[in-house]
Amino acid sequence: MSSDWYDFLKKDYVRGFPSYCGITVDFVDDGVFHTRLNVQDRHRQQDGFVHAGVMSTMADHTAGYAAYSIVSNQYRILTIEFKINFFKPATGDVLLCRSTVINRGAQIITAESELFSRDGDFEKRVAKATVTLMAVAAKSLIKNV
Amino acid sequence: MSSDWYDFLKKDYVRGFPSYCGITVDFVDDGVFHTRLNVQDRHRQQDGFVHAGVMSTMADHTAGYAAYSIVSNQYRILTIEFKINFFKPATGDVLLCRSTVINRGAQIITAESELFSRDGDFEKRVAKATVTLMAVAAKSLIKNV
Amino acid sequence: MSSDWYDFLKKDYVRGFPSYCGITVDFVDDGVFHTRLNVQDRHRQQDGFVHAGVMSTMADHTAGYAAYSIVSNQYRILTIEFKINFFKPATGDVLLCRSTVINRGAQIITAESELFSRDGDFEKRVAKATVTLMAVAAKSLIKNV
Amino acid sequence: MSSDWYDFLKKDYVRGFPSYCGITVDFVDDGVFHTRLNVQDRHRQQDGFVHAGVMSTMADHTAGYAAYSIVSNQYRILTIEFKINFFKPATGDVLLCRSTVINRGAQIITAESELFSRDGDFEKRVAKATVTLMAVAAKSLIKNV
Repeated sequence: MSSDWYDFLKKDYVRGFPSYCGITVDFVDDGVFHTRLNVQDRHRQQDGFVHAGVMSTMADHTAGYAAYSIVSNQYRILTIEFKINFFKPATGDVLLCRSTVINRGAQIITAESELFSRDGDFEKRVAKATVTLMAVAAKSLIKNV
Repeated sequence: MSSDWYDFLKKDYVRGFPSYCGITVDFVDDGVFHTRLNVQDRHRQQDGFVHAGVMSTMADHTAGYAAYSIVSNQYRILTIEFKINFFKPATGDVLLCRSTVINRGAQIITAESELFSRDGDFEKRVAKATVTLMAVAAKSLIKNV
Repeated sequence: MSSDWYDFLKKDYVRGFPSYCGITVDFVDDGVFHTRLNVQDRHRQQDGFVHAGVMSTMADHTAGYAAYSIVSNQYRILTIEFKINFFKPATGDVLLCRSTVINRGAQIITAESELFSRDGDFEKRVAKATVTLMAVAAKSLIKNV
Repeated sequence: MSSDWYDFLKKDYVRGFPSYCGITVDFVDDGVFHTRLNVQDRHRQQDGFVHAGVMSTMADHTAGYAAYSIVSNQYRILTIEFKINFFKPATGDVLLCRSTVINRGAQIITAESELFSRDGDFEKRVAKATVTLMAVAAKSLIKNV
């Protein structure tokens, strides 16, 4: 794909709720999308760890753009469903999400998102998600799938 | 359970990320928790629908408190994993989440969260999640499970 | 739908692997499918409980036919993915599966399967699955989705 | 771990339902388990592909033994839940399952299972599962978790 398309995706990613959360884009390539969050108090839950909802938002949205990177702007990407496992509390200052497309069907695209909590030089994997997405022609988006 | 415990849960729910998102509590009973969000632009994604991350945050957090309602304050509730299916775009002004504990094991609690988008008098179910939780003694929380 | 279609589904269900497992059909209606298994030693795992694979097979196949019941014979139903939670060991002599379609999209159908272990007059819910299915035109089935 | 333990696991794997299905063990190492199935007509579904239930059985059971390989015989491994995505029809003569532990908690172990369909020299990945398991002291197994 062209670098114009990747530049568009980087800008398009940071809108609405992900922008409100403060997520930014690190890297994009064919079927790959990496994002980052500088953890603030507002991202935490009652025990001081990053909230599962923050990690889920990053996992879903980043996987969606990994899928978006392999189609054209004639399509929109919808999340059909996702599943996320939480391994360890995210206690670091930075949260990283690395998403990769693992299967490309004619309509159904499957991606995985791995979440890492970084504390100084130390990085641990805190969660992993499998995300099932659907590429839908942009003009048909109003209809339910 | 006592109404003191339910009053505590209502206050405890609205902290950190869920508070930043604007989620409020409607109702709590034994194994049941209902929450609500008045949808603002910051909750939407690029196509104008409520972002999947918002729904995931409500589904996870509300299920967690449904589980919390059946244990005592000697415990904390951790999300082991969850899975969420998205059925229809959430286009209404209000998002409702109704969570129910569906199985109570000695340590593992399973809850379901249903998400409804309300537009005036009309309500449609937009997503459903299954959430696997673990009750952990509060004093052992530092250790990974 | 006509009773001819339901009769066809009852016969069609019992082929290949589900037949080898010994699963039989109890009931079919619009978006609803119920099946049964008389538990034998070959269905158990190393601790004497019904194997998770048996329950998964029933959950998937029965959900698939619940979805099949709402489309016509111009379509085939493919499982995109499923998720199953196991609540209690299945120790009874009979395993029952009750599947229901919970959302009907244009292409994506979501169904739930509940598994019950029956021991005499006593019945307990032992597992629950969420199954994401896709209706595909029968003549296009060779292509990957 | 000792090779005695691995030899025990290889024998222990092939009992009950997995044995009835015809699954055999290829390889075992610390947190790793590989199995194989020579596909027969009884493993197929109505369209001639390997049934999702067969793949689910392999994915669950093989992940369970990958988890079992990292604990001692004082423990039993229970599947709390799993999720499996199906990518392509399994059309080959041999089905392979490769499971790996991806997170080791104090009680909760997470493993992934990848399923490959082999046709002559050609191998394609047809499904992938995430399996959440729990290590339970063998003597406490009667109680529900």
